[in-house]
Amino acid sequence: MSEEKKGRLIGVGTGPGDPELMTLKAVRALSEADVVAHFAKRGNGSNARRIAERHFRPDAIELPLLYPVTTEIEKDHADYKSAIEGFYAESARAVAAHLEAGRSVAVLSEGDPLFYGSYMHLHVRLAERYPTEVIPGVTAMSGCWSSAGLPIVQGDDILTVLPGTLPQDQLVRRLGDTEAAVIMKVGRNLPKIRRALAASGCLDRAFYVERGTMEGALAMKLTDKADDAAPYFAVVLVPGWEGRP
Amino acid sequence: MSEEKKGRLIGVGTGPGDPELMTLKAVRALSEADVVAHFAKRGNGSNARRIAERHFRPDAIELPLLYPVTTEIEKDHADYKSAIEGFYAESARAVAAHLEAGRSVAVLSEGDPLFYGSYMHLHVRLAERYPTEVIPGVTAMSGCWSSAGLPIVQGDDILTVLPGTLPQDQLVRRLGDTEAAVIMKVGRNLPKIRRALAASGCLDRAFYVERGTMEGALAMKLTDKADDAAPYFAVVLVPGWEGRP
Repeated sequence: MSEEKKGRLIGVGTGPGDPELMTLKAVRALSEADVVAHFAKRGNGSNARRIAERHFRPDAIELPLLYPVTTEIEKDHADYKSAIEGFYAESARAVAAHLEAGRSVAVLSEGDPLFYGSYMHLHVRLAERYPTEVIPGVTAMSGCWSSAGLPIVQGDDILTVLPGTLPQDQLVRRLGDTEAAVIMKVGRNLPKIRRALAASGCLDRAFYVERGTMEGALAMKLTDKADDAAPYFAVVLVPGWEGRP
Repeated sequence: MSEEKKGRLIGVGTGPGDPELMTLKAVRALSEADVVAHFAKRGNGSNARRIAERHFRPDAIELPLLYPVTTEIEKDHADYKSAIEGFYAESARAVAAHLEAGRSVAVLSEGDPLFYGSYMHLHVRLAERYPTEVIPGVTAMSGCWSSAGLPIVQGDDILTVLPGTLPQDQLVRRLGDTEAAVIMKVGRNLPKIRRALAASGCLDRAFYVERGTMEGALAMKLTDKADDAAPYFAVVLVPGWEGRP
């Protein structure tokens, strides 16, 4: 009985940026949710919210979850870890309060919620205690290779998704041992990524994509990119399917 | 001028199976397309068509592209290769005839068109000659980890997507060298996959997912799966994020 009255937790993938790349299911979930939660950096506003807000119920309660300012700096530092752990625990408590009151809570997640998404931090803390549903979304990487018109994998190709934060020798080894690769978290790692691509023989077929399906999208061969300035969320794509017709 | 009159080629991702997991953009593209093309095995009907047909224009021309019966058997045989090459070339010609006549052609693709999709075979033959757009979709693997509620990658995790057709020693080596993995094309490869997971120390955290977001979906720890009977499109998921809270 008390189980019946608990609200439902819904991880909602909002896709890679273009609002039209939301799924019908995500739109319906948002049109029904009592509460919409979204992660954002302080003063920055949530990207996922910008993509999805047109679908919120007019009377929906919004629950912004604002990262402490330490995010994305000195990730291995103990203070960072403790601050971010505390933030996720507090966020989970805020969401749980609504669920306990019987309100459904949709948590927005850019791309796909369980693929590098912030929603995961709530999922692991709440999914065992509350009825939970995850609505997958189009990933940022799918948005990028589609806007670039770049076939990424076919047949028995292996795809490796790599963070650009890896040391250069790791990147070289792994790029040399896969048919296709997606390198994320590019930003200031681009000079290193470029060197690793050259050393592994992949530079000539690498593409650079910025802002994927959003306004101002940019896609080019990496060898045509004149400099190594890049935003954090740019990606480098190494397409497989080398035996293509 | 003649360029203006050519029709538009549109690769349309229909998502992993649940018709609600189509994007708004895919729905709009289908409601506008003059021609809808879909790949299928003879006598089998197209899965993508079943997902998407409710959105076709009532007067849309359907163009079924029927695989020769040789598909998925003896893939390395020269006769197979020549039959399948001929089939893709013929399919591209059939699509091109509509594009030349000024008709827009939406090509359905389960999941995401440029991620192991049949659409890719048309894309590489036609995209340079005709105005082309690719609408990404939710991949089958996203559908699978979402329906299983399984966080797959977080932070700096590496994800490796592997075909279950790889030799066992390759699987062992690669599973031991990644934080997370998706193994596709399971089917009769499952006994080998299970052995490789055990040898690489990943068996205890592996999940088996069948039919993802479709009716009759099944998700369980692989160690709870009693036998090694599995459909070709089942997947095995090895989640990363081992340092999770």
